[in-house]
Amino acid sequence: MTTGSDEVAVQAAGSLEADTVRSLATPALLLDRERLDRNIGRLRDRTAAHGVVLRPHLKTAKSIDVARRAYPDEPGPITVSTLAEAEYFAAHGFTDITYGVGISPAAAARAMLLRRSGVDLKLLLDSPEQAQALGQAARDAGVTARAFIEIDCDGHRGGLTPRDPKLLDVAASMAAAGVGLAGILTHAGESYALHTPDALVAAAEHERTEAVAAADSLRAAGHDCSIVSAGSTPTAHFAEDLAGVTELRAGVYMFFDLVMHGVGVCRTDDIAISVLATVIGTKPEKGWILVDAGWMALSRDRGTAAQKVDQGYGLVCDIEGRVYNDLIVPSASQEHGILAMRPGSGRPLPDLPIGSKVRILPNHACATASQHEVYHVVSGNGGAIEARWPRIRGW
Amino acid sequence: MTTGSDEVAVQAAGSLEADTVRSLATPALLLDRERLDRNIGRLRDRTAAHGVVLRPHLKTAKSIDVARRAYPDEPGPITVSTLAEAEYFAAHGFTDITYGVGISPAAAARAMLLRRSGVDLKLLLDSPEQAQALGQAARDAGVTARAFIEIDCDGHRGGLTPRDPKLLDVAASMAAAGVGLAGILTHAGESYALHTPDALVAAAEHERTEAVAAADSLRAAGHDCSIVSAGSTPTAHFAEDLAGVTELRAGVYMFFDLVMHGVGVCRTDDIAISVLATVIGTKPEKGWILVDAGWMALSRDRGTAAQKVDQGYGLVCDIEGRVYNDLIVPSASQEHGILAMRPGSGRPLPDLPIGSKVRILPNHACATASQHEVYHVVSGNGGAIEARWPRIRGW
Repeated sequence: MTTGSDEVAVQAAGSLEADTVRSLATPALLLDRERLDRNIGRLRDRTAAHGVVLRPHLKTAKSIDVARRAYPDEPGPITVSTLAEAEYFAAHGFTDITYGVGISPAAAARAMLLRRSGVDLKLLLDSPEQAQALGQAARDAGVTARAFIEIDCDGHRGGLTPRDPKLLDVAASMAAAGVGLAGILTHAGESYALHTPDALVAAAEHERTEAVAAADSLRAAGHDCSIVSAGSTPTAHFAEDLAGVTELRAGVYMFFDLVMHGVGVCRTDDIAISVLATVIGTKPEKGWILVDAGWMALSRDRGTAAQKVDQGYGLVCDIEGRVYNDLIVPSASQEHGILAMRPGSGRPLPDLPIGSKVRILPNHACATASQHEVYHVVSGNGGAIEARWPRIRGW
Repeated sequence: MTTGSDEVAVQAAGSLEADTVRSLATPALLLDRERLDRNIGRLRDRTAAHGVVLRPHLKTAKSIDVARRAYPDEPGPITVSTLAEAEYFAAHGFTDITYGVGISPAAAARAMLLRRSGVDLKLLLDSPEQAQALGQAARDAGVTARAFIEIDCDGHRGGLTPRDPKLLDVAASMAAAGVGLAGILTHAGESYALHTPDALVAAAEHERTEAVAAADSLRAAGHDCSIVSAGSTPTAHFAEDLAGVTELRAGVYMFFDLVMHGVGVCRTDDIAISVLATVIGTKPEKGWILVDAGWMALSRDRGTAAQKVDQGYGLVCDIEGRVYNDLIVPSASQEHGILAMRPGSGRPLPDLPIGSKVRILPNHACATASQHEVYHVVSGNGGAIEARWPRIRGW
């Protein structure tokens, strides 16, 4: 586990460290605090209006400083994707944590150490084998485990359908193993493939009805099912009715990205992170500009390749964050990115001589942020680096 | 810059740390030391037989411990892809370093600090603007800069073609700016798209003739061009004639990967790294096994998608490293991988109950290794973790 440290004052970061966007060593990850706060506020207001709990998924940000923008007063409910994240956020005072990946027998023992330390870490499972292993791990640690049953609402990944007879078997196995049933948890992962408001509203409604059906089935069999947890960034923003759902989870909503733009959840000027890069060459005869941000800085994620508008490895903005229409990153090697106009664009390549800086909006915020150790925090198109926020990695 | 530390004895790594493949927390990156040594020896013997220098590209390994397998006695010539790598390997005694990415004016100043410390750091450029900026940075630092002119042998990325009249302009600009000409450097990046021995031999020969043509052109104009540097892992293994070439560069050859297997450079049992994962669920009705290694552990690289055999996000082996024929990772989310038989395979899904461990061979070693902080070193199908070798990241 990497514990990371709290916000690092820029002036303490060493004499070689630049303190403006213009002088920052590249490639570097920028985080626009104004956009971050706006995105956080948007979903907070939406869930509050629906009367459901928002449980942010911190797998995207992996940063206590970002978590504190969502919870400026005191820690609240969160979701994590690794036990390293659970341990990190627990060390920073978060006690209501859902680990949203199916638990393995070996991971169960480690998870129980957190529960023994007083953290209400809730796990996820969908089989009697996991329930038995978790019960054993809890007994070994002298604690009681709590877990959600994972519900498969759209065939995306793991979980049981609400009508699967195994659902009640799993609940019975949990009871037999002494594992507390926290509730049910589902994730409309297929919503990422949609791109119209009607389809997104329908996906959110389907996610809701499947979640509620599973909870009803468990309750009818005499099980307590207090939490009905649903969510994905697209469905969380398009759900019109949340009756029966008690909480929503979403992660990428804090930063947004080009995939979410393609789905129709955000505008490009909502995207809060970008990769700062420097021009290192020009090939006007090919219509290319070379920059020092390749897939190591941008990630290998090509999530927009399957969307109506393929953004390559990213959409290019000027140093102040204004999008160059049609300028994308069609190809990337480890430390080189090639900028070019989108195929079919009639626009000329912008004049970007060697040494110029650009900001590149990412396809997938979770993947791009994970390539970096630190967020360089800026506000809007201002040039000052306000803070450096470390992020964690690993498992 | 992250300096990293030397090899960490396993027993010193903390009481929670497991010391066998079976008990290791997953996902985790395994490195097979026998395969590593065999791959290193193969290209070392090949280049020695041709009488050329081998300058390993350490962008793949990013580890002093791996570098020491290539240089067990004393440090030798290396290539790096970031200044952070240059600083790290210089701190570990390497003094003959080529930074293989076009230099930006801002990076030049940082590079000159290394030269001032006595490291023969050679840079790369292809424009008069870069030559002038580098000369200025060298004068500011009170040192002399040395650089290669980048030659474009196959249209892959940056550089000048050997017949481009700008080649002599760049050399003249370097002389005027007081920047020493180390030689020329080219990279047959398009060789990764090939898959027959004849095509690879031809690509290597084309890379050689273009490199030599550029060197000849510079020499005819009175410039010293002592180093003629070529290479990519495919062409380095298939070149039949290296007349006029003084050194070869290759990086992924140390580990190999499924892309190199698809190109035809290695067998699957040459691939030295794999991601250890644990089964967390089964969906026999869909033909799926779920594991706790998603794209965060495997990387988003889908380099085999364009090859004759698409390996998804990786090819699955048992815990001892034996390939399960046709079992691949067709899809992955952040921390979930789905295992399934290759489309059209008549074979049954292997019996892998929850808690089972598998090793997943990566598409692209550079990308997969970069998702991890440490190599867990094993030998062949043995179960002991012999060492933990940290790796660096960042720029």
